[in-house]
Amino acid sequence: MTLSFKLVATDGIARAGLLETAHGAVRTPAFMPVGTQASVKGMTQPALRAAGAEMILANAYHLMLRPGAERIAALGGLHQFMNWPGPILTDSGGFQVMSLGKLRKISEAGVLFRSHIDGTRHQLTPERAVEIQHLLDATITMVLDECTEFPATDEAAGLSMELSMRWAARAKAAYMPRHGYGLFGIVQGSVYPALRRQSAATLAALGFDGYAIGGLAVGEGQKCMLEMLDTTLPALPPDRPRYLMGVGTPHDILEAVSRGVDLFDCVIPTRAGRTARAFTSRGVFNLRNARFAADPRPLDAACTCPACVSHARAYLHHLFKSGEMLGAILLTWHNVHYYQDLCRDLRAAILAGELPAHAATLRAGWQAGEPDANCKGA
Amino acid sequence: MTLSFKLVATDGIARAGLLETAHGAVRTPAFMPVGTQASVKGMTQPALRAAGAEMILANAYHLMLRPGAERIAALGGLHQFMNWPGPILTDSGGFQVMSLGKLRKISEAGVLFRSHIDGTRHQLTPERAVEIQHLLDATITMVLDECTEFPATDEAAGLSMELSMRWAARAKAAYMPRHGYGLFGIVQGSVYPALRRQSAATLAALGFDGYAIGGLAVGEGQKCMLEMLDTTLPALPPDRPRYLMGVGTPHDILEAVSRGVDLFDCVIPTRAGRTARAFTSRGVFNLRNARFAADPRPLDAACTCPACVSHARAYLHHLFKSGEMLGAILLTWHNVHYYQDLCRDLRAAILAGELPAHAATLRAGWQAGEPDANCKGA
Repeated sequence: MTLSFKLVATDGIARAGLLETAHGAVRTPAFMPVGTQASVKGMTQPALRAAGAEMILANAYHLMLRPGAERIAALGGLHQFMNWPGPILTDSGGFQVMSLGKLRKISEAGVLFRSHIDGTRHQLTPERAVEIQHLLDATITMVLDECTEFPATDEAAGLSMELSMRWAARAKAAYMPRHGYGLFGIVQGSVYPALRRQSAATLAALGFDGYAIGGLAVGEGQKCMLEMLDTTLPALPPDRPRYLMGVGTPHDILEAVSRGVDLFDCVIPTRAGRTARAFTSRGVFNLRNARFAADPRPLDAACTCPACVSHARAYLHHLFKSGEMLGAILLTWHNVHYYQDLCRDLRAAILAGELPAHAATLRAGWQAGEPDANCKGA
Repeated sequence: MTLSFKLVATDGIARAGLLETAHGAVRTPAFMPVGTQASVKGMTQPALRAAGAEMILANAYHLMLRPGAERIAALGGLHQFMNWPGPILTDSGGFQVMSLGKLRKISEAGVLFRSHIDGTRHQLTPERAVEIQHLLDATITMVLDECTEFPATDEAAGLSMELSMRWAARAKAAYMPRHGYGLFGIVQGSVYPALRRQSAATLAALGFDGYAIGGLAVGEGQKCMLEMLDTTLPALPPDRPRYLMGVGTPHDILEAVSRGVDLFDCVIPTRAGRTARAFTSRGVFNLRNARFAADPRPLDAACTCPACVSHARAYLHHLFKSGEMLGAILLTWHNVHYYQDLCRDLRAAILAGELPAHAATLRAGWQAGEPDANCKGA
């Protein structure tokens, strides 16, 4: 195996692991902040590190179009380009290409599409997707897949999944194993348990360094998503990391970790930060709300991020009301920090064999909210 | 005197000083980054400190309207509100009120105006401007003045200046001296040497903790601005700091320091940073320019800011082309760092008695530009 992954502890079917890569270790469960275009929106790389992030995600589709994979390679690879020496997982671009609608055409060979930036024509094949990620020097390469549209009929979902499986085999054949680097397969199959199990078994037989669950969080709802995890995860090799793509809220992450997922990525914490929404131990706050205008308290007294340690809610409110970039900067930092703390604490609970109690505490805090959030101090 | 100011060295008529305040010391010449709404756009307060800033500027006009001076007072004052424990100078709001045009009416009593945010009516008098800045806990309070429109006739400029002088006397009477805090008067008089000298003499007779030169950099051109400094500065008490308001480019600062100015503020470095323009030892670069697309070199090899130490020009170019906030964040940081280095180096040159040689080196670098800026490396 080219990537070392050790299960450090389990609590029920939840797992605490250690992924060791050419660019450093990742303690799992782990959340990867999303740096689509080689930047996690609103954060410097030292801030990401300070927030606790160990691995981040970038997007091969966006980077192949701008500035170009060959250019990044000439500049020393993605780690040097963005000055993030830690592990980087790159999404293959399948999800982004699917969302292009009429701008793309899928065939057995791959995807023909027009750039969303300048309309230029590009072809993405399973082999080219691997090559691009090699040029980027991605620590973890994702196979090109067809992210099945939702909803899809059983038949359409099956054909789509089978195409993804053939592409996965081609990606595996094209991939050059290197020490500390890895290639992940992606389970598809929409909301059909039989298809999900078939996809997982196909990928397991091919053998990957890790297994992603794709095509979820696309509108099926949390209950259905969790059922798909219950169906899929037992069919995956237990000694390899499992990555739930594009998920999700803190509650989604808690539920998925409880079911044995190890890795996550999602734009939610960064996007929410730019739109004044903060994740806290007492649920989600919108800092534009007038109830924070004179509130002298920290955003979340339990948090050690710069927004919480250095400022009152009233200041954060003022920054958003005044259109100051610093509001987005501080709240993004907070949210990423919150997600990192969430995963760190879930891991600690698994190590201690106390996940159910910890989960109950988390849920209770989110549900209770903060009835006394109206200002009392100023 | 409530603010301690010591002249540490002079070189010709250029000065190196030490201003000691209730919130810490400021080595002059010094540049104050502009935090109009209690935030220097795009920078965290620790970043400002790391860039070398010792004192920053905020704007009483903006803060009286949002979130309100009384609210900031209730939240512990501006230092606590924005978590900047260092000295803060607050502009009185005169300049902003002038720019409101038909929304304001000036009388002997003060200014009646409508908020640019919500249209509400407000009155600003010399006494209320002092009170607002007291509520903000400003380290240095600026008198309310009428920023004379440009161009103005001799007669209009004289009447305007005389009104500002009467307001300055009222501000001084209303101001409560405190240890380590100070009140600055503002010289007006448009481009008329006799009016400038009269204004300076009037303020000197009233006695202030420092003297600002206002109403410049409003369209009169650098040559005229420097002539006004030549006229005005000899009429000011030499043992008090001199502050040239709203200026300027690195070249403006060099010329003004050479003439005996100690303090500066300007939005140029932060605004330029948000629009991809970088100040360097080789002049101004626009990072959107295609010549930087594959350039592996640091922005300015002489600079120790995070943008220069951690990234190639190609990455900064990519961030701006991709619309990533991090471009503005990094370039703002660089520009503020550049301005701080500029003032620090000017001070060192004055201390060494080598200002003319240092000035010649700076000018030569800016004029030479960078003929080899086209990419050679990638």
